[in-house]
Amino acid sequence: MTQGNGNHNGNGNRNGNGNGGSIITIIYYKNKNLINNGSSYLTSSTTPLDILLSPKYATKEEIDIAIREFIQIVGDDHVSCLEGDLEHHSDSFYNAHKALKTQKPRAIVYPSCTQEVSAVMKICHKYHIPVVAFGGGTSIEGHYVNTRNGISLDLSRMDRILEFNKNDLDVVCDAGVGWQDLNEFLSPHNLMIGVDPGPGAQLGGMTSCNCSGTNAFQFGTMKENVIGLEVVLADGTIITTRQRPRKTSAGYNLTGLFIGSEGTLGIITKVKLKVHVKPENEGIIEIQFESIEDATNSVKNLIQKNIKLNAIELLNNKMMQSLNLSKQLAHIYEEKATLFLKISGASPLITKETIKQIKFVITDNNATYFKVATNDLEKQEIWSARKLALWSAIQYGKSVLGNDAQSISTDVAVPISDLPEIIKLTEHDIEQTDVVGVIVGHVGDGNFHSCLSFNAENEKKAWEIADKCVERAVIQFQGTCSGEHGIGYGKRKYLELELGSQTIDLMRRIKMALDPLRILNPDKILKIDPADIGEH
Amino acid sequence: MTQGNGNHNGNGNRNGNGNGGSIITIIYYKNKNLINNGSSYLTSSTTPLDILLSPKYATKEEIDIAIREFIQIVGDDHVSCLEGDLEHHSDSFYNAHKALKTQKPRAIVYPSCTQEVSAVMKICHKYHIPVVAFGGGTSIEGHYVNTRNGISLDLSRMDRILEFNKNDLDVVCDAGVGWQDLNEFLSPHNLMIGVDPGPGAQLGGMTSCNCSGTNAFQFGTMKENVIGLEVVLADGTIITTRQRPRKTSAGYNLTGLFIGSEGTLGIITKVKLKVHVKPENEGIIEIQFESIEDATNSVKNLIQKNIKLNAIELLNNKMMQSLNLSKQLAHIYEEKATLFLKISGASPLITKETIKQIKFVITDNNATYFKVATNDLEKQEIWSARKLALWSAIQYGKSVLGNDAQSISTDVAVPISDLPEIIKLTEHDIEQTDVVGVIVGHVGDGNFHSCLSFNAENEKKAWEIADKCVERAVIQFQGTCSGEHGIGYGKRKYLELELGSQTIDLMRRIKMALDPLRILNPDKILKIDPADIGEH
Repeated sequence: MTQGNGNHNGNGNRNGNGNGGSIITIIYYKNKNLINNGSSYLTSSTTPLDILLSPKYATKEEIDIAIREFIQIVGDDHVSCLEGDLEHHSDSFYNAHKALKTQKPRAIVYPSCTQEVSAVMKICHKYHIPVVAFGGGTSIEGHYVNTRNGISLDLSRMDRILEFNKNDLDVVCDAGVGWQDLNEFLSPHNLMIGVDPGPGAQLGGMTSCNCSGTNAFQFGTMKENVIGLEVVLADGTIITTRQRPRKTSAGYNLTGLFIGSEGTLGIITKVKLKVHVKPENEGIIEIQFESIEDATNSVKNLIQKNIKLNAIELLNNKMMQSLNLSKQLAHIYEEKATLFLKISGASPLITKETIKQIKFVITDNNATYFKVATNDLEKQEIWSARKLALWSAIQYGKSVLGNDAQSISTDVAVPISDLPEIIKLTEHDIEQTDVVGVIVGHVGDGNFHSCLSFNAENEKKAWEIADKCVERAVIQFQGTCSGEHGIGYGKRKYLELELGSQTIDLMRRIKMALDPLRILNPDKILKIDPADIGEH
Repeated sequence: MTQGNGNHNGNGNRNGNGNGGSIITIIYYKNKNLINNGSSYLTSSTTPLDILLSPKYATKEEIDIAIREFIQIVGDDHVSCLEGDLEHHSDSFYNAHKALKTQKPRAIVYPSCTQEVSAVMKICHKYHIPVVAFGGGTSIEGHYVNTRNGISLDLSRMDRILEFNKNDLDVVCDAGVGWQDLNEFLSPHNLMIGVDPGPGAQLGGMTSCNCSGTNAFQFGTMKENVIGLEVVLADGTIITTRQRPRKTSAGYNLTGLFIGSEGTLGIITKVKLKVHVKPENEGIIEIQFESIEDATNSVKNLIQKNIKLNAIELLNNKMMQSLNLSKQLAHIYEEKATLFLKISGASPLITKETIKQIKFVITDNNATYFKVATNDLEKQEIWSARKLALWSAIQYGKSVLGNDAQSISTDVAVPISDLPEIIKLTEHDIEQTDVVGVIVGHVGDGNFHSCLSFNAENEKKAWEIADKCVERAVIQFQGTCSGEHGIGYGKRKYLELELGSQTIDLMRRIKMALDPLRILNPDKILKIDPADIGEH
């Protein structure tokens, strides 16, 4: 586990005393001798972990003083130290890497506006209090585990849709707006947002984690959908990364830097987001194949033939089995490798013609079943099967392994031509064990999840399968350890495996520049403390 | 003008002497008293300009020593101090902000591989030598003006296409590969890259400037097309931002940070780029309107109706006049507001149907002429008119104002609904003067250029029109000062107007973290020297 309260193993004096420039060295750097001859880490471009001192955070007593100051800002009703609240802000069933019992915030602060967030951050900066931003609490990689017992900053009160620029196809929203609420607001205008993550997610967290979902193949991830952000920095400074242009080459892409930074570089308070006209003349297609290779080869060919699709989802035979067992569906599926496609067109004729093109491709790849749903009921039936996948996979695991079964999910993405191979190998690994595993994925982007259920007895095996899947993706296939879930607390070692230590050291350099006191979501994405011996 | 050789107005000692942590303060920060009580700039998240000392760069003598070391690395043939080479690497006719006579590099270094770039950077880091990366030399905002008389690092020898992953639709290239050469290589495979900037541009520069072009509406800018980068940092460290996944949420988006950073954060040495299947059944459509409002309202409606277009280019009546005068076209156009659209479809029927949809929209907006080109000759004729726009605008200026006439181009982008208004206002401003101005733009993204030609007498008026256009875009319409050309040297004041000083201070914080010695393309995007009194 990570050291709970950073034990400060140097002669640090975080408040400084004005006697010159030695403060920065004393605070951050272990060894003064590292600084010499211009080759020092002060003049270099990266920050390796081992040259840092451990961060020094506020004591419990200092946090108690700070809590009184928070109350001055947000009001008595909006600071909570209730045990239930602390629990809720520490972990969830869906987190792959569970918080330890000791990893809880000391208080939850609920600001109502950007100015309050800024004021709270200034206090945290003054006392060196760790701050974990919290939105819908739907992330699954331990993003909001409170490793340092600071505060949880819950943005859910900030839930206003501030601007709706219908003619520009954009909205400006508070970070606490839920994506489903936003879609409900947009729906009467025949509009929708481009991403569809797990239910309950809020825009701030969605941006921080660069989420996506089944619509990413058509509309991209948050990275492609966010126009600009308002962000409160570690010291309380409020900045705007962009106004509302669709396209810009003006200066550093700060928007892109904060997207996916998981609350470690700043607190996102406002999101300017593209909205999209709802696809017209939509069709949902279900296609089945004898083998997973035929399915993944079809995906490859559809993309290479440039057929305009809105979503390409793959479910393997075990996934179909778990859906059948869920008894939530309108009919029973054959338990074969299955593709669900979404298509649309500016006229019914375009949709019809696209279907024809798809048929050519999948026939060449030995499809055994092909069904197009065009009426609303049928479309909903097919797509709800896809939407039930994660839930049914977890239920399936419990039905086989008992009610205590836990689940984890890999999230690799690889170049499209390697999909057939890596999915086959992963299926093979699962079959060799008694771990219950199904595969489902946004395969148009080369991204898939192996949802692995396990109990106390085969937990180790499940992690071995996951580790192997990630190692293959990043070493053998030049892919990524995370297509859409992020790194959080649990996947840090994978990130280093994927990109190498010098790239991580560059990320750490940026972290240290923007948050020198290391108060923003410490220990996430990368290690910031040399005493951190790795996640449990 | 910017101070040529940073006059170091503090008690700096850049080599340090190992006596503790005071170096960073002495090097970078003006006033030790700024550092106190934890509210110091060392613990903050931004770096205002006025707390910095001026950078101290190598003397002429030190650069002479370094040149001998460069020769050891790249060979005698690949370091040049010839006057003609120095001139060519300092400025071009197309630069809006001309280099002063004194603003030239002391030498051009031509590395052949990443390892050589790294070795050169280590020497530059050791001696504190400013480095301006140079590619095709086609940027137009003074990006490669050598404000500090360091070296120009010309990457054009690094021109290998290293990997062609046809099945994954990506390539891995050296930074010095030209985009037209790459397209020529891809063409037999029915593939192309997604951007189409000015002729001669190379991938490294295109990435550094986040370029785009007429295809951006379909394929996005470099930001949406680059999968990953290899970058040499200021101290010579070589990093890779990503492997080859299409989609990722793994850690900070370093790829996005380097794209558009204009050589100020690192030297891009390799680019992993998406390639696209060439649009099939392509049609080019020419539409003319009585008024610019009818044209821009059509754009707005086409986008809002979600009709799938590949490009939407607007040329105003003056632009059409300049094209006619160029005598390079197959036929004479009516001198009216004109849209050129590109469409395609997976089958001829889809293209046909799309044309029908377009017709509905433009008829509602009073189009006076509509022509679809489907055979290759006609298509080429129409599109070459668009491609000739910039050149013919410059010629047009010269024909009216004399051969000494210079041209500048605004590059604003605004939310799509504000296009009609800002274009009308800009046309009006031009009409009030004797400046020769035409308007052409990638209006599907809200991005347009006013190409303004002037001579010595009306230069001031041209700049006033440009200033007013940018001010309107960023203040009145929440847009950006640069849609695709970048900031370079000349547009720094616009960037501050657009985003505010604190956002610039955050960019400066990142600059100082990655390049503490300020050797990478100094003075570009933002000021890094408190003695810099602004561009001339």
